[in-house]
Amino acid sequence: MFIAFEGVDGAGKSTQVRLLAEHLEGQGREVLLCREPGGTELGEELRRILLVTGGEMDPEVEVLLFMAARAQLCNKVIRPALEAGKVVISDRFLWSSVVYQGIVGGLGVEEVLSIGRVATRGLLPDLTVLVDLDPEDSHSGLDEDDRMESRGLDFQRRVREGFLSLAEEFSDNFALIDGGGSVEQVHGRVIEALPQVQS
Amino acid sequence: MFIAFEGVDGAGKSTQVRLLAEHLEGQGREVLLCREPGGTELGEELRRILLVTGGEMDPEVEVLLFMAARAQLCNKVIRPALEAGKVVISDRFLWSSVVYQGIVGGLGVEEVLSIGRVATRGLLPDLTVLVDLDPEDSHSGLDEDDRMESRGLDFQRRVREGFLSLAEEFSDNFALIDGGGSVEQVHGRVIEALPQVQS
Repeated sequence: MFIAFEGVDGAGKSTQVRLLAEHLEGQGREVLLCREPGGTELGEELRRILLVTGGEMDPEVEVLLFMAARAQLCNKVIRPALEAGKVVISDRFLWSSVVYQGIVGGLGVEEVLSIGRVATRGLLPDLTVLVDLDPEDSHSGLDEDDRMESRGLDFQRRVREGFLSLAEEFSDNFALIDGGGSVEQVHGRVIEALPQVQS
Repeated sequence: MFIAFEGVDGAGKSTQVRLLAEHLEGQGREVLLCREPGGTELGEELRRILLVTGGEMDPEVEVLLFMAARAQLCNKVIRPALEAGKVVISDRFLWSSVVYQGIVGGLGVEEVLSIGRVATRGLLPDLTVLVDLDPEDSHSGLDEDDRMESRGLDFQRRVREGFLSLAEEFSDNFALIDGGGSVEQVHGRVIEALPQVQS
């Protein structure tokens, strides 16, 4: 089983990824966590490039670097783990590229999905948990040194709307979770959205 | 005017690029030369990654890195030069990705072209000069430290056939040049293929 978490910065994705992993491990499942971009040597190098290059990177360059990191992650980490029977939980995956570069960056949803099909060779999460939160209610102080998390409230609102529109258009792929309230409350909603891993 | 040179390793592309540039400069044209991958800070970093990562990189990862470098090159170098009225000559461009990863690597011609449309935002050379040479007649000793040039004769033959099939399928985009004979003979054929820059 392959689960991805998506949502605006500060929605609490990383915390929920960790809590879900602990929950599944408590049930005796082997869990592999990964994050995007990163998780491989190449991915971490591209992550560094993406973080330090400053805000001037064009969306087509950005999406191609994210996709290259994602392709490597799929081939070297995610697929081998799934084949070994592990549960894989990824902090962001393909839908982030669709929102950030396809919708907000203007490249187009279909254009980014078509690149994604080549990059992932068709591998998609069995479930994408969209942790939805009004950016004004962000759980975490954003790290201003991190270009990807420093683009302001209006940007984050467009990201949120992009995710919500995808969750509506591709509803079979998404579990839409209210990210408001306590960490434990959100975790409870995530668990409820995953009946198939309870057994 | 934007001209790209394509062909197998050792076909003499770099030499012909230089000779054409000198020819056009002799006619008073301003010429900008570039090479792929590279030509920008990001491109050179990706070039380094592509060269040192060894032969195990999957074609989907490779094509995405080449495309990211290409997108940056288009935006930062090629388009500004064309807008300034220069002639741009590139040592390899999009068709290399189509051949190396799309045909020989098995990703598919249409799949690579669709990524290319996003990467280049539709920018294509006005003319692609395919310098065709039987790999056995290669002009240059191949640099064995260069992964991209060390994949053997059978590989180079498949690359040659890929280029020839594209030149047939997309004949409007290509000038097919016999790469055999002396450097000056080949240069003469290149000049003949470019009547539109003679004036």
